[in-house]
Order: sequence, then structure tokens, then C-alpha cells
Amino acid sequence: MQQTYKFVTAEEAASYVNNGDIIGFSGFTPAGCPKEVPTAIAKRAEAFHAEGKEFKVGMYTGASTGDSLDGALARANAILFRTPYQSNKDLRSALNDERAPYFDMHLSSIAPHLRFGFMPKPKFAIIEVCDITADGELVLTTGVGISPTICNLADHIIVELNHNHPKELRGFHDIFEPLDPPHRLPMTLLTPSDRMGSTVVKVDPKKILCVVETWRDDEVGGFTPTDEVTDKIGQNVANFLASEIKSGRIPEEFLPIQSGVGNIANAVMASLGTNPDIPTFEMYTEVIQDSVIELLRNGKIKFASGCSLTITTPILKELYKDLEFFRDKLVLRPQEMSNSPELARRLGLITINTALEADIFGNVNSTHVMGSKMMNGIGGSADFTRSAYISIFTTPSTAKKGNISAIVPMVSHVDQNEHSVNIIITEHGVADLRGKSPIQRAEEIIENCVDPAYQQILRDYLALSGPCHTPTDLHACFGMHTEFMKTGSMLGTNWENYK
Amino acid sequence: MQQTYKFVTAEEAASYVNNGDIIGFSGFTPAGCPKEVPTAIAKRAEAFHAEGKEFKVGMYTGASTGDSLDGALARANAILFRTPYQSNKDLRSALNDERAPYFDMHLSSIAPHLRFGFMPKPKFAIIEVCDITADGELVLTTGVGISPTICNLADHIIVELNHNHPKELRGFHDIFEPLDPPHRLPMTLLTPSDRMGSTVVKVDPKKILCVVETWRDDEVGGFTPTDEVTDKIGQNVANFLASEIKSGRIPEEFLPIQSGVGNIANAVMASLGTNPDIPTFEMYTEVIQDSVIELLRNGKIKFASGCSLTITTPILKELYKDLEFFRDKLVLRPQEMSNSPELARRLGLITINTALEADIFGNVNSTHVMGSKMMNGIGGSADFTRSAYISIFTTPSTAKKGNISAIVPMVSHVDQNEHSVNIIITEHGVADLRGKSPIQRAEEIIENCVDPAYQQILRDYLALSGPCHTPTDLHACFGMHTEFMKTGSMLGTNWENYK
Repeated sequence: MQQTYKFVTAEEAASYVNNGDIIGFSGFTPAGCPKEVPTAIAKRAEAFHAEGKEFKVGMYTGASTGDSLDGALARANAILFRTPYQSNKDLRSALNDERAPYFDMHLSSIAPHLRFGFMPKPKFAIIEVCDITADGELVLTTGVGISPTICNLADHIIVELNHNHPKELRGFHDIFEPLDPPHRLPMTLLTPSDRMGSTVVKVDPKKILCVVETWRDDEVGGFTPTDEVTDKIGQNVANFLASEIKSGRIPEEFLPIQSGVGNIANAVMASLGTNPDIPTFEMYTEVIQDSVIELLRNGKIKFASGCSLTITTPILKELYKDLEFFRDKLVLRPQEMSNSPELARRLGLITINTALEADIFGNVNSTHVMGSKMMNGIGGSADFTRSAYISIFTTPSTAKKGNISAIVPMVSHVDQNEHSVNIIITEHGVADLRGKSPIQRAEEIIENCVDPAYQQILRDYLALSGPCHTPTDLHACFGMHTEFMKTGSMLGTNWENYK
Repeated sequence: MQQTYKFVTAEEAASYVNNGDIIGFSGFTPAGCPKEVPTAIAKRAEAFHAEGKEFKVGMYTGASTGDSLDGALARANAILFRTPYQSNKDLRSALNDERAPYFDMHLSSIAPHLRFGFMPKPKFAIIEVCDITADGELVLTTGVGISPTICNLADHIIVELNHNHPKELRGFHDIFEPLDPPHRLPMTLLTPSDRMGSTVVKVDPKKILCVVETWRDDEVGGFTPTDEVTDKIGQNVANFLASEIKSGRIPEEFLPIQSGVGNIANAVMASLGTNPDIPTFEMYTEVIQDSVIELLRNGKIKFASGCSLTITTPILKELYKDLEFFRDKLVLRPQEMSNSPELARRLGLITINTALEADIFGNVNSTHVMGSKMMNGIGGSADFTRSAYISIFTTPSTAKKGNISAIVPMVSHVDQNEHSVNIIITEHGVADLRGKSPIQRAEEIIENCVDPAYQQILRDYLALSGPCHTPTDLHACFGMHTEFMKTGSMLGTNWENYK
């Protein structure tokens, strides 16, 4: 079947790509990203640069990618622009050094914005698949991302056929691309396990420029093990949700969970998995991590819908051995579906994401260190938060050995605002912000969530302002941040300097 | 028919309400709010206070209300808490003096959050109607707001039967309340003129405590006439949209318009109405203002869906004379539908809202003056912005005779963040933020939208930071605000003071 396509080396595939070209890449997180061709493009860029020639490409991805993609192209200084999310060390350096213009956007919006023409259309789509048919059926691997859209929009498709993923992944995907307004129809899902699309991405075979074979694993990093702080955060989340069920504010049949990425998210999943007051549940989320697979195996999670299987290689290999067990328990969808505000609000998601910092009024910074430096990006956190049934943000109360309070008078960048954040949880406790005025919220957060070393500093900040709706001192509001930048610790913050 | 109900005076109706009770009010903006009973409750509160007794009530509304509701209760110091939006002078004073705890929330969320139990349930619903039947059919008047939900949740309903609104308004409403997760179904609208609900709010007649008759008009204020600046903003919006159609980024059949409230919104509607390159269009919005009625009459607007007819009395009386002309051109819905993110994204709304201030990176402050003082509230602006096809914010480039630049290094409160704001328009021009990095956005905004007197100040601010993703100086970012607070003008801002 596949012989109708032109099989080439990664270098030959990369040779089609020229300076200024725009590329859309498959995958979501390192899961499902192409690996061989991006690295070959980076080498091609380096060769051009060595000859003193320009070589940069525009890059659209689903979310973050593997090091062989973002890392290789960033190190080659080959990035014309990059959107919508990243988490690679070298790319992070590049965009904070102003070597790579980066547009940090909501993950649900990139595919439609590309179709609408809000950003230039990609010339190439580079897509990892586990199978390809002669009539243009692409079976994706572990991440869907924006693959359907870039396959439709691109002039040329370069396929990476990855033999490390079984062809039997056919059936695990639910590929749907909505019509654009004014012709858009409702998304029909009523539960996380419903389906509304195809199992494959269907393309015109003539658009497939070439196929590169590979046997490389997804570059999914392991997570730091949970510790006392993250365990306590996880327990606080589980106990809070159990008490909400008891009070009737969350229905007793429970609601689907969306959970972010990382070691706090893993601790939260572990606590939900073991807390006897949490019923069995479903996930409707972006990223399906190792911890979800374990809970699907033991039955605590009934079903998981996501955009990617971001699973470490040993766990993924075990999953592939039991593929039939998981066939009715997992589905992977484009991020336009997995992160859809329509579906988040209809399904009634309980959303659990991580804050980089939060302020005493409930605003959350998800992206910027000290207001200036991009960490990763907003990802899907606001897609979910904004339309959640109930939105939760977690964070350890301090960072840098206690020298940073994660809770400050004003966040140095706002990614989720007070209007959309319902609950903040640290290892110290839970702040319930629903229905509270800014001053009431500040008291709730300071008393329940802030590290004891910082409580009085924040109480004193509040007292700087006279009567008003939201006590904000525009001289002093970043006093904790600037103290840290000067001394390496927020602990010495002295409001007398601002009076 | 109505004789089965107990007809009483406003004072008698108010006598059922006691200290600590929680009340939900009908209406949205002054349109459709009760008037007699709230004023009588305020008088009752004053009488209690005169005797040294406590008397305060919790208040849920659709949005802002008339002076006989928010104004009367604020002046009587009778507010236990208040949500989700207000625009009354005396209430604004009360909440900024910390005499009335105010929870500023997204308007699409209040009804579901009340049903979920996230805030205490109302004991009373006070509902203005133009007709009531013996079997409990309430025909609402000019505003829907949260009436269906508070009628369902309240123990008792007090009806204000307003004879100034014709009973023939029956048929102008589309009353639908979704099931709650996990049982929620899709909202089925495919165009603004589709319907999915009932023409009346149906209640158990036994819950109707009493009926108060009234002949009072809605307390809709007139708008300041448009001026050179607002006219230019309106033209810039219309020209921008016309060019987007031409480029194919907005489909040639155009898309439904959501437009905010006030004199800029009126100027925008006037420009859309007269620009020959803007096709006839539909509205899917919150508030239908005078300008929309005129454009429905002349055919430029084909259909308008909203939550309220916030129309000045003379225009409303003219509309009532031609009710049959408007019957197939207007529909009023609960704010859970009019502001639904599901529908905003499906219908592909072009959203046009007003910024109080914006920053050079595209964050928008919709609510707070100098970070502390609440102006009105976020209203529905983020409901629409977040799920828009394309989101636009308008603002005059300066305020206070040029002493305030509406564009600053960092907004003093973030209600809409950089990730959700696509376009900023002032009288000077249009900044298109789509696909641009923070530095690129800053250059676009400074060169196209900022008043010439402030361009160099903002260019110099940008230059304060070394290389980074989002140039932010946490010492200096509110330098323009604090200069204004000190001197009454931002013009003297001197960044040398921050080096």
C-alpha cells in the first residue's frame, strides 16, 4: 500500500524546506511530534548559517514538543516565529533573548485562527503517523494537536512513519474539525467517552511529498517524584472535592476532571485515586500522564479523553502490550475539541491547574517569572478555567527554599483573572473565593493558603490602602518582587519604604 | 385571571422582607428591573436603621439596575452583598467605601453558580412582568437577566406588574434554562434568530406571594452624543472590519456583532450602519441600545438577539407602536444564553467592547480606576471576548483632557488579558495583535493607537528593560499612574527616576 509514496531520508525531506517557509508540526507535548525531519531541518539551517546565509522557519505546533524539534531548531537559531506553547530549555532561552518571536496563545484557538487566516498559512505539515494508506488515511500516534488543520491547510505534507507505535492505534483517535462560522454546528459530545469524528486524518495523497521512516520513541521526560508539599496539596484538593460532593455543590455522580501537567498534577491524581470519598470518575483533559494510566488500570478512572498520551516510554510500552484493555477507555482528540469552551462548560469540568504565582485577590500568573521572563506559556489552562464548572489553581506556598512567596500583593503577569479563579489550594489549605469581595478574598487567601512567614507581610500590605474596593498600592504592589530581585528573598520586604 | 393573586401595595410587599434576606431581582441594566418594591424595601431599611436596628439584604441582579433599585438600597445603606455588576453612582460610592461587599463576576456565570449552590440561594425573587396568568406564566418586560433561575430557586416570588409595557411583549422572549452537568445538552442555536426556549417564565403559582401594580418607565439614561473622537473610533472599527472582509479573514456574508454599552458603542453602531462596505448584519449581544433599533428599522440590521432592550423611553414608546414590525426582528434571552461561550464561539461573534485602559502588550482593564476603585464591573465583556471569532477593544487614546493616556506600560487591573485581546482601536488607528510577540505588539500599539504626546514616553519605557520576552520593569511599570496621582497628569512621567 505504502509503496505509492516516496520514501526518503530525513535529510532529503528537509531539503524541500527553505528559508522563510512556515511549518506546522504534529503532536502535543513531546507525544506524537516528528523527530527526524525537524532535526534534519536544524542541521540544514546550521549549514546555511555556516555559509553566512539566512535560514529560519515559522513554526506552529500543538503545544510543547520534544528536544529534537524545539531544542534542535532553537539551538540552530532557525526560528522565524513560534506559537502557541513551549517548554524546551533552549527555546526558552532563545525567546527570552529576543532571538525567537513567540506568540503565547490559548491552545484551543490556534487551529481556528490558522483557518481564519489570522496567522499565515503553513506551507508544510510534518506529521508523525503509525500507519498511512494509499488513499491518504493517516493514523496518528500519541498526540493529535493541530494535525487535522495543518494537513488541510499546508501545500505539502511530510510524513514521519514511526514503527515504534503499533498500527493498532487506529481507533484511538476522534478526529473532528468544525466548520467555520457562520456555518458552525454544535459539538455533539455529551460525555467524555462520546465520539463525533473519524479515526484517521484524511488527506489528498497527492499532497504527501514524502515519507520518512523512524523508530524513535517520544521524548517524554520523567517527573520529579512527589514530596511532602505536593502530597499535601494533592490531599487538600481531594478533600476539598469530597466536601463539595458532600455539600451538594458538586453532584454525587461527580464530574469530569481536567488536570494540568507536572508533579503537582501527578500528586493530585494520586490523591484523587486513593481518596475513598472520591467516586470513580472520567477525565476530559489535554494531557494524559502516567498517573492516569495507572488509575485506568485499577478502575478508579473509567475513561480518559485527551489530546495526547504524554507517557514515559516504559509505561507506554506496557500500555501497547494491553492495547485492547485500553481501547474502550481512551480517546485522543484535536486540541480544538479537547480544549473547547463549549464542551468544558457543557460537560461541567472540574479544572485543576498550577499557578506560577497567585495574588491575594485571586489573579493567577501562569507564564512569566518576575513579569518579564517567559517560562512555558498559558497552554490550555485558560481554555479550561474560563468555562469550568469549578476552577482550581494549586501551588506550593513558597519557592526557592522559602525566599519567594507564591502569593503576592499583585501578580507580575495576569493569565487567569479574579473573575475566573474559584479556588486556590496550597499545602497549607484551601481558599474558596466564590461570591467574595476582593477584601474578603484577600483575607481568605492570606489566612488559609499563605506560608506563615509571609502572612503578616501581606496583611500589612492590605493595610497600606485607605477604604476602596480592591486595596492596591501602585507604589508598593511589586515590593515583594523587587525585594527578591535585590536581595534574593521576599522575606525582608518593608512597607515603610513605600509610605 | 389575575384575581387569584394577592394584589398589594409596594410597602406591603416590602414588609415580607427582613434583615438578612437574600433577593434576586429581574431585569438587565435598568431594563426590566422592579422599581416599586426595591424602593419600598429601602424605606423599610431606613425605618429600621432609624430605630437602631440592623437591616440589610443580599442582592443578585442580572447586571446594573435602575436608581430606584441599586440607588435606593445603596443610599439606605441596606446592602449585605451585591453581585454581579452595577453602574449606579451611590452604589459605586458604597462599595468603594467598603459599605457594600461586591463580587464582580462574569455575567454568564451567575445563574449557573446560583443553581450549583456556589452562592446562597435567594429567598425572594422580585420580578417585573407585563402579564401574569393564573397558572403561573410570567411574561417578562424589557430585560431577562437571571429571572428564570431566581424564580426557580426562590421560596417566594413578588411580582411587579408594569402596565406601561404591553402584554403583546409575549413572544419576544426565548426563555431557556439548561440542565446542569453531568446532564447538560447542547444549546441548539445555529443563528441569532433561532429559538430554543419558551416565551414565558413558568412558575408554581403558589410561590407568588403577591403582585404590585405599577406604571413606571424603565430608568434608562440617555447617552452623551458622539463627538469627533468617538466618531473616529467608530469609523476605524467599521473600516477595519470592511478590510477584514476584503482580505477574507472575515467571511463575506459577515458575522454576528456583539457590541458593548455606551457612547463609543453607539458611535461604532452608527459607523457600521452607514459604511457601505459593511453588509447587512445580525446582532448577538447583551444590550440592545437605541442605535440598534434605528438600524433594524432601516434594514441594515436584520435581527438582534439580546438580554435587554436598554432603550430610552421615547424610542421604546415608538417601538411599542410598531411592535408587529419588530416581532420577527428581536429576541430577548437569559444572560446564560446571550453570553454563553458555547454560542459565542459557534456563532463566530465579532465582539466590540470598551477598555478603561489598555497596556502596550494588549492587556485590558475594564473595571478599576488606578487599580483600586471599582467603576462598574466586568459585565459580559469577557464572556464574549474569550470565545469571540475576533475580539476588539476600543478606547479614546486619552482621558481627562489629555492628562491620562489610556495606553500604559501595565494596566492597573487585568480583566481581559493579552491572550484574548486581538485588536485595539483608538481614534488614532488600529493595532492588530494577532500572532505577534509582546515586543511586536508593543510597537504596533504605540505606533498606531497611542496619542502622540505619549508615544515617546512609552517607547522609552520599553527601552528600560534588557532583552526578555515581555519588557517589564516592576519598579517603573506604574510610573505613569503614580505620576498622575501625584501631579494630575501622566505627561511629566520621567523614567530617569526609576533607573
